[in-house]
Amino acid sequence: MIYADNAATTKMSDAAVEAMLAAVRENYGNPSSLYSTGQRAKEALEEARRTIAAVIGAEPREILFTSGGSESDNQAILSAAAEGRRNGKTHILSSAFEHHAVLHTLEKLKKEGFDITLLDVHENGIVRPEEVKAAIREDTCLVTIMYANNEIGTIQPIREIGAICRERGVLFHTDAVQAVGHIPVHTKEDGVDLLSASAHKFHGPKGVGFLYARKGVRLTNLIEGGAQENGKRAGTENVPGIVAMAAALQEADAQMRQGAAALAEKRDRLIRGLKRIPHAALNGDETRRLPGNVNFCFEGIEGESLLLLLDDKGIEASSGSACTSGSLDPSHVLLAIGRVHDVAHGSLRLSIGEELTDADLDYIIQSVAETVEYLRSFSPIWRDLESGKKPHLL
Amino acid sequence: MIYADNAATTKMSDAAVEAMLAAVRENYGNPSSLYSTGQRAKEALEEARRTIAAVIGAEPREILFTSGGSESDNQAILSAAAEGRRNGKTHILSSAFEHHAVLHTLEKLKKEGFDITLLDVHENGIVRPEEVKAAIREDTCLVTIMYANNEIGTIQPIREIGAICRERGVLFHTDAVQAVGHIPVHTKEDGVDLLSASAHKFHGPKGVGFLYARKGVRLTNLIEGGAQENGKRAGTENVPGIVAMAAALQEADAQMRQGAAALAEKRDRLIRGLKRIPHAALNGDETRRLPGNVNFCFEGIEGESLLLLLDDKGIEASSGSACTSGSLDPSHVLLAIGRVHDVAHGSLRLSIGEELTDADLDYIIQSVAETVEYLRSFSPIWRDLESGKKPHLL
Repeated sequence: MIYADNAATTKMSDAAVEAMLAAVRENYGNPSSLYSTGQRAKEALEEARRTIAAVIGAEPREILFTSGGSESDNQAILSAAAEGRRNGKTHILSSAFEHHAVLHTLEKLKKEGFDITLLDVHENGIVRPEEVKAAIREDTCLVTIMYANNEIGTIQPIREIGAICRERGVLFHTDAVQAVGHIPVHTKEDGVDLLSASAHKFHGPKGVGFLYARKGVRLTNLIEGGAQENGKRAGTENVPGIVAMAAALQEADAQMRQGAAALAEKRDRLIRGLKRIPHAALNGDETRRLPGNVNFCFEGIEGESLLLLLDDKGIEASSGSACTSGSLDPSHVLLAIGRVHDVAHGSLRLSIGEELTDADLDYIIQSVAETVEYLRSFSPIWRDLESGKKPHLL
Repeated sequence: MIYADNAATTKMSDAAVEAMLAAVRENYGNPSSLYSTGQRAKEALEEARRTIAAVIGAEPREILFTSGGSESDNQAILSAAAEGRRNGKTHILSSAFEHHAVLHTLEKLKKEGFDITLLDVHENGIVRPEEVKAAIREDTCLVTIMYANNEIGTIQPIREIGAICRERGVLFHTDAVQAVGHIPVHTKEDGVDLLSASAHKFHGPKGVGFLYARKGVRLTNLIEGGAQENGKRAGTENVPGIVAMAAALQEADAQMRQGAAALAEKRDRLIRGLKRIPHAALNGDETRRLPGNVNFCFEGIEGESLLLLLDDKGIEASSGSACTSGSLDPSHVLLAIGRVHDVAHGSLRLSIGEELTDADLDYIIQSVAETVEYLRSFSPIWRDLESGKKPHLL
């Protein structure tokens, strides 16, 4: 089986599993407890905080542990909005292709009276810093732009946007769920105030993530209760999950720094191969994308059928975000980069890891090519396209 | 080492660890994905939902997975409040000794204009149904009373309160974090509409819990984003944590039904032994309490010193809730049952499991007696009490 859906979730690394098991067996105490088992858990927790802070260029006290990327996004945005409201600033700037954890939180704020501007991401799937600059207003309390898109993998000019936000004194949040552990992220150099991450996207466990909040940024609780996490996130700390996240991140970061170029070569091999399929097009910028992300549209087919047939061939991939599966609507990300409905429906996302061999990649290319051809052979849309009844768009 | 702080957190059971590892290794896919690894994860998730529902007398679709008890409490209360606001009802009835996940959420709602009534819990630590009945108003949208108290272990008359709420058409939420897996809980027979639980309190993993919401009860999202959990809780499902929770609950439930009487006997042996210490008093009702909970106040000492010295003797216990450790204030629970500040400071909670032998229990009794005597030997408060300068209160 070839697993090519690492953007949806990853398999836990051995290091992460071992760290988790050690904590489950040895440091199972409640870190708020005074006795030895509790204090050992507390030490393991703080060690994990230091490890994670070091990887993303932050201070340990700037790391807040959460249940994952969605919770981090929600808390970051609601915190900035609460601060904005206190200062009479109720405008938020974001982009049209953010993750739903961001977009749905913004929709909630809109109902509460916030004014939301969603920037265009253009054909290449990249937000333009000059457009951010132009859209910031006197009453803007937050700019939230994702680090790398979860479907098409395009990497945003975070550092440029960060500099603009600092210059204008506006809080800057980035959903870095797809970036952390995959490309270099440094909170200080990037100039971000709030950053969300999720462990299961970098070979850590599900159900755990973190929120970076620059010191001085006032957080609002999403979950009220006990005094854990400096009073900003209630609930007994998930120590085994957190130490596993730290172990996974340390490993992912080291592997990324060493192996990103090799992974990008594998990605580019896939892209070259899939481009040879007629009426196929890569989604998003060709080079400014995550090293493991490939996303294509194929005219005249349904992405879901393609996925099921690829699964039969032992290839596990996706059509877009896993979070919206079951929806009949085409991806909002593909619509945001200008794909029309029909084309957006025929998308395929391959998010690969470094373990795939060239033979695996060639097998993927061949399987996709054959399956697309097969699906087109009985597609009415394809017949209309081939007969000239409808014009080709790709 | 004798671990006697199971109310703070428990060690994961072998069955839970095995279930978690199997999911980490085999069912690591994203349950929203169409391919085999994802679909297996989805099946494991739904199997866990059925298991948990069966244990607490619910339907699978009434179980929502969360990151733990605090999140469940927050979502339950905010959902009921939102429904109340829609209906012009903004009064909430609760008790003075709820967990902070409940009390702090109620404080937040108070700032938003809700009227909060906290019922007395009397000397025995038990809410009186007739007082619930008398306090329900025309504008009451929610009654939230915990199933069993996390410090003193008293079990509330949930079924009677449930019947009153049903009769009056008021939503009833119970924080059952300390009850599920420890005493029989049946949502339908108890007449609850919303119920919170946390896996790590019944030998499951940390960072996972669930919220029962009777079908027909409208939930408001706490975490916005993807369409997971029927659109009511965004974020990739923590499948390994959830299946481990189900395995732990199934086991805890079976052991409880078989072994609750034996555990209560151990509890009562501890209570009898500790009562022989002069000027000591059990906190909370003697019989209507969790089978593993013992909570005492000792005059003239500080609970924190007692804990540290017990830790030296290999006994891990607590002075109250782990969630508020670090706070210099005495426990709000002990104040709620009428203990004065000085006395409330000298508290000890022992929450035991069935693995403790009679010899362990006798060792605890002897160690506590010796340590209390030792601490009193240089306590100025104790000197004042013994010299008659201050009157004994216990």
